[in-house]
Amino acid sequence: MLVEQITQALTAVRQQKPLVVNITNYVVMNNTANALLAIGASPIMAHSKQEMAEMMSFAGALVINIGTLDSVWTPRMSYAVEQANSNGKIVVLDPVGCGASSLRTETSREIARLANKLIIRGNASEIIALAGEQAQSKGVDALDSSDAALGAAHFLVEEYGASVVISGETDYIVTKEQTVQLNNGHEMMPYVTGMGCTLTALTGAFAAIGDETGLAAAAVLGVVGEIAAEQARGPGSLQMHLLDELYQLDEETLATRLKLQVR
Amino acid sequence: MLVEQITQALTAVRQQKPLVVNITNYVVMNNTANALLAIGASPIMAHSKQEMAEMMSFAGALVINIGTLDSVWTPRMSYAVEQANSNGKIVVLDPVGCGASSLRTETSREIARLANKLIIRGNASEIIALAGEQAQSKGVDALDSSDAALGAAHFLVEEYGASVVISGETDYIVTKEQTVQLNNGHEMMPYVTGMGCTLTALTGAFAAIGDETGLAAAAVLGVVGEIAAEQARGPGSLQMHLLDELYQLDEETLATRLKLQVR
Amino acid sequence: MLVEQITQALTAVRQQKPLVVNITNYVVMNNTANALLAIGASPIMAHSKQEMAEMMSFAGALVINIGTLDSVWTPRMSYAVEQANSNGKIVVLDPVGCGASSLRTETSREIARLANKLIIRGNASEIIALAGEQAQSKGVDALDSSDAALGAAHFLVEEYGASVVISGETDYIVTKEQTVQLNNGHEMMPYVTGMGCTLTALTGAFAAIGDETGLAAAAVLGVVGEIAAEQARGPGSLQMHLLDELYQLDEETLATRLKLQVR
Repeated sequence: MLVEQITQALTAVRQQKPLVVNITNYVVMNNTANALLAIGASPIMAHSKQEMAEMMSFAGALVINIGTLDSVWTPRMSYAVEQANSNGKIVVLDPVGCGASSLRTETSREIARLANKLIIRGNASEIIALAGEQAQSKGVDALDSSDAALGAAHFLVEEYGASVVISGETDYIVTKEQTVQLNNGHEMMPYVTGMGCTLTALTGAFAAIGDETGLAAAAVLGVVGEIAAEQARGPGSLQMHLLDELYQLDEETLATRLKLQVR
Repeated sequence: MLVEQITQALTAVRQQKPLVVNITNYVVMNNTANALLAIGASPIMAHSKQEMAEMMSFAGALVINIGTLDSVWTPRMSYAVEQANSNGKIVVLDPVGCGASSLRTETSREIARLANKLIIRGNASEIIALAGEQAQSKGVDALDSSDAALGAAHFLVEEYGASVVISGETDYIVTKEQTVQLNNGHEMMPYVTGMGCTLTALTGAFAAIGDETGLAAAAVLGVVGEIAAEQARGPGSLQMHLLDELYQLDEETLATRLKLQVR
Repeated sequence: MLVEQITQALTAVRQQKPLVVNITNYVVMNNTANALLAIGASPIMAHSKQEMAEMMSFAGALVINIGTLDSVWTPRMSYAVEQANSNGKIVVLDPVGCGASSLRTETSREIARLANKLIIRGNASEIIALAGEQAQSKGVDALDSSDAALGAAHFLVEEYGASVVISGETDYIVTKEQTVQLNNGHEMMPYVTGMGCTLTALTGAFAAIGDETGLAAAAVLGVVGEIAAEQARGPGSLQMHLLDELYQLDEETLATRLKLQVR
């Protein structure tokens, strides 16, 4: 049942080619745009207030990623979320490095408060910090296990009316209704910069065609990352194979490979 | 005759290693710099007014790409075009997403008006929107066919004294004197982000050694894209092979592969 | 003796996974973050004054790279260096394009003056220009040979109390105590954009675990570049193999491959 929803979502992204507007960090702009194209979506990286109202009027979803945050980005992000709200569009928030500085923690909370329809995608340390618990954070890499962030995720679901995706060795997709656990992926994936950001961007594409939980994107990236890692000698070839396999992925492979359970 | 000019241009780029100054978007800075290096040119990504006069005094050409436009970039772009004019250097304009917002449309026109020597490189939707016709634009990906943009290209040639390159399944190089049609390339190329931006950057390299039409760059990228796509499983390996084949391309292969006709 | 120090440094980076804070240019943010991850370090690309004091309190080193310099970056860089000083952390400076504009030359000198603990990593033209001699600079690519920059490097060692790494066909690591010469690497490496920036980033990782000369990073990248180039058809596959081989490199291969001599 869930598996069927996921494979139908893949078909829908390729048919509808949704436009995903990304305000994201400088590090990952290229590879998240490439991931969106490879899965069949249409990415645009735009941030100017002068065009955001127009952009959100025809966009399918808005991705906000605070990876290289500063005082220039913050008002642009807030303004874009307001435009998404006015147009009834969903916002996907990636609170990169939340907990590593109060700037990041505060800004993430402000965006979460502001968004009407929201999916939050973070690693365990970021989800814990966003919820206000004490996380073992250092920089932007997770030091906590996904399990440890489940309580924080439930809190965020309540607090912001959001869906929460905790990504890590195990991924959890936490909504008001249920928690889904995914055990795909590969241990080499954290050696590619912005792998989490890629998941966030894909989450935007699937949200645009109606998956407001974040499950389909996490399933797709977990399976594709696994296939890519099986062919990779290291993180360089992993990134290359990942884009190839996002492009090649078919519904049957996706369904067969999925390791999914409802908790 | 045209084929010979194109192969000679390739030889010249490698011999002269022209410096190309790029004010371009965050998404493609890495891969356009890599494409310029791979073909044998010397790229610099610089945008500060404090150094642009110096830069343009020894640059071969200026590339302006509005992909991630905002109010910080606009005055820098105009200033750089003025410095290019003062030094008699050619400007290559990539009006990314022209038509998707009035900011992009207006800024593209302002830069086109300002430049003394100009090549415009865009997809069909962008060329149509720049000319003021009604384009089927959504984001930064083309929805119109290249043929549909020929009238708009002729208008732009007259209006701005420019050469116009329409890239797509078929490429057209439109100048006052003639229209050249290229049928190289591969359908997988639009799945790599910034493929058009790569063409624009290469156009700067060839303009710097004397091709003020944009033809040589379009020919080279069409042929190289074809060779790269034949080896690629998807957009990840396509991008990698593209840089390898730009580096490996020889004049004979280029001449043999070219599918070119004068209309 | 030196070889043993270098292999031990590689082991230490992987064990300690030091956090390296990078204020670097837009072009290379993605591939320098990837190189740091591949070698086992933890990169963060952060530049806001609002979080730099926090970041430098738990960072292992600060990398400053002026590749896409403007008046917005300069005060952020100075402030970050002050925070590194306050926390006793080492600064690695990459004076990209020093000599190509007075903005770049002056800013590089200001940062060098400001840093208490400093490693400078540049190509020959940049090192010569930073020292105030007449360099054959054009853009950001070196036109001088590494040998020609040795005098300038000795001057910088005295002037700023720094270690200096001149990278090129031959690399030199110049300190008060000695000059080490490295003859690894491959002629294809300059065809990948930001290869020098990658060396600078890796220098930050090794500085964070105690190599304040820059030797270990230059040794590692020289050997890995060589191994990667042997498998590469061009700069696209070179970049991919480079990340794979940084990830795969073992101490024995490193020791066996090293072509090192003390002058």
